[in-house]
Amino acid sequence: MNDSIHQHIAILGSGQMGLVCASILAAPSLSRPPSNITVWSHSPEEAGELAQTHRSDRLPGYLLPDGVRVSSRLEDAVAHATLVVSAVPVQFMRRVWTPLGQSATDHRSRKSPLPSDAAVVSVAKGIENTTLLRPSQIIAEVLHDNPDTKPRGIATLSGPTIASELARCLPATMIAASDLPKLAAELQVLFSSSWLRIYTSEDILGVELAGASKNVIAIAAGILDGLQAGHNAKSALLARGLAEITRLGSAMGASQETFFGLAGVGDLATTCFSPEGRNRSCGEALGRGEKLDAYLARTTSVVEGVATTLSLMDLARKFRVDMPITTAVHGVLFQNVDPIEAISRLMSRELKAERIS
Amino acid sequence: MNDSIHQHIAILGSGQMGLVCASILAAPSLSRPPSNITVWSHSPEEAGELAQTHRSDRLPGYLLPDGVRVSSRLEDAVAHATLVVSAVPVQFMRRVWTPLGQSATDHRSRKSPLPSDAAVVSVAKGIENTTLLRPSQIIAEVLHDNPDTKPRGIATLSGPTIASELARCLPATMIAASDLPKLAAELQVLFSSSWLRIYTSEDILGVELAGASKNVIAIAAGILDGLQAGHNAKSALLARGLAEITRLGSAMGASQETFFGLAGVGDLATTCFSPEGRNRSCGEALGRGEKLDAYLARTTSVVEGVATTLSLMDLARKFRVDMPITTAVHGVLFQNVDPIEAISRLMSRELKAERIS
Repeated sequence: MNDSIHQHIAILGSGQMGLVCASILAAPSLSRPPSNITVWSHSPEEAGELAQTHRSDRLPGYLLPDGVRVSSRLEDAVAHATLVVSAVPVQFMRRVWTPLGQSATDHRSRKSPLPSDAAVVSVAKGIENTTLLRPSQIIAEVLHDNPDTKPRGIATLSGPTIASELARCLPATMIAASDLPKLAAELQVLFSSSWLRIYTSEDILGVELAGASKNVIAIAAGILDGLQAGHNAKSALLARGLAEITRLGSAMGASQETFFGLAGVGDLATTCFSPEGRNRSCGEALGRGEKLDAYLARTTSVVEGVATTLSLMDLARKFRVDMPITTAVHGVLFQNVDPIEAISRLMSRELKAERIS
Repeated sequence: MNDSIHQHIAILGSGQMGLVCASILAAPSLSRPPSNITVWSHSPEEAGELAQTHRSDRLPGYLLPDGVRVSSRLEDAVAHATLVVSAVPVQFMRRVWTPLGQSATDHRSRKSPLPSDAAVVSVAKGIENTTLLRPSQIIAEVLHDNPDTKPRGIATLSGPTIASELARCLPATMIAASDLPKLAAELQVLFSSSWLRIYTSEDILGVELAGASKNVIAIAAGILDGLQAGHNAKSALLARGLAEITRLGSAMGASQETFFGLAGVGDLATTCFSPEGRNRSCGEALGRGEKLDAYLARTTSVVEGVATTLSLMDLARKFRVDMPITTAVHGVLFQNVDPIEAISRLMSRELKAERIS
């Protein structure tokens, strides 16, 4: 285990997952030395408020641990980082990460403030619209690391993790996935505690894809809740939703096992059933008859699944995968299809043998 | 499609699933002719009450459809049956079905009241203690059909089906599984309606095994609820529980796909998350500190998962499969292990890579 990764940690984003990561990493541990932690917020006001009060409107009841720095200056936050935790919503990642990249054309023309050996772990769940890139791919593309140097370690951390429960230290599990097993193992030690159990995986493609796509299924689950369709219907949706996101994953080269594990079915379950899930809550409002624009206007948090639905439709077309639930969600979100009509269409498809792959 | 299967249907058992099946099969349908339906109850009092009032204490709000007969005489109920629906709890099946079997030693010595060409579909979820037989196997063994005649069609019907939701005609899905695809297809037509969607499967081993074993995981899920552990923990348990029952299924020759489908993860989800699930509710009481004997004494319904835990432990040993959650549930149910201690043991297992198979 390389101790250097633990020394200076920059957390980009002061949303729920950013705040929770700060707490997890600042907690005293016998299995690792303490780290210097800086949380970066894009808003100077929010950074100031968080630094002074240690509290945030984004996560009621949360208290930022003593010793964690807060900054709204990106260059300062990452200056000595040995690890960067990216807790920025996927559709904003490119904007946030671009100042940290080398110049695309000439590696000498612009010096990045990010140390070249700093590893990166993303906790965001989505797929960038138009490029269809996953979080780790966006970061790699934007950083333009010098191809002649040792490749930078990039990882993702995912799993069934409703942030408000993590903030209360309720028992939970996560998957640390990276092409570099060494980095996944380091993150396992770094994030593990008596209440948080970290498993490792080498299937970063599958983990990121499962984390993104389950948000779309969760919107459908919320629609069922809004229609008061019951647990049988929602569980059937979970199973059929798992089947379709697994089909997409397989077509893209991910491991099926990932979708049937914590980052797949585990995350899907908590997202579909926790009353606090953002994507489920959005779907529930739609199921009750609210319009998407109205819902998004009154919510303060980013509903990743809405943008991800667009990306998933593109991927389904590109990889020729049948995704009836995603298509139904797309219809409700963007084509003004009535939720009851969308569900009826799903239920009245031709009777057949169950098939996953 | 053979119309004969629809003519006379006997439903054995007047518990929740028996009652719900009566409603489903008695509902008018354009895709099949109406059937003569008889519900058999082991208790003459219960049969009389149900026949007179059309209501049952076992399923509040339920109304038995007009035209459905009720009987407490098993021979009468099955006399002209072309299909028997077995809705008897697994540990009572042998006792109920034995009078319907031929004599074991001589096929001419005792004539069964059950027509030799009547098909059978079981809706029970469990594994018989000591014999470790599945419902369809118990029925086949007890019937002692003449091996020289055409083999009797035996099937199972399973899936995410909380009975009180089915009674309200909320949307749901089920799997009809049989070694005989023709029987599964007949059941698909027979049970399908605008709100109930039936898929077919040939993996009756997997469907029965998944239906039985998910009840044990649901007891563990209930324990977490009793401890107020949150949705992240319960979803992680669902994923890890799915992994261990899938391992057992694979070792026994079932298809992995079955466990990742409606009869597996779908049923597991509704059983773990619906507040009405009996196995989850039992676990919740244990998690709150109640003793098993006290809980079983005050509940009127059969908690299938309790007996199934014993069978699953035997199967795990027999097929050399590691089943940590089942073992933890067994400890809490039968070895007086404290629920918090059982959960801590699960959480503190050595950190490792996620593995399903």
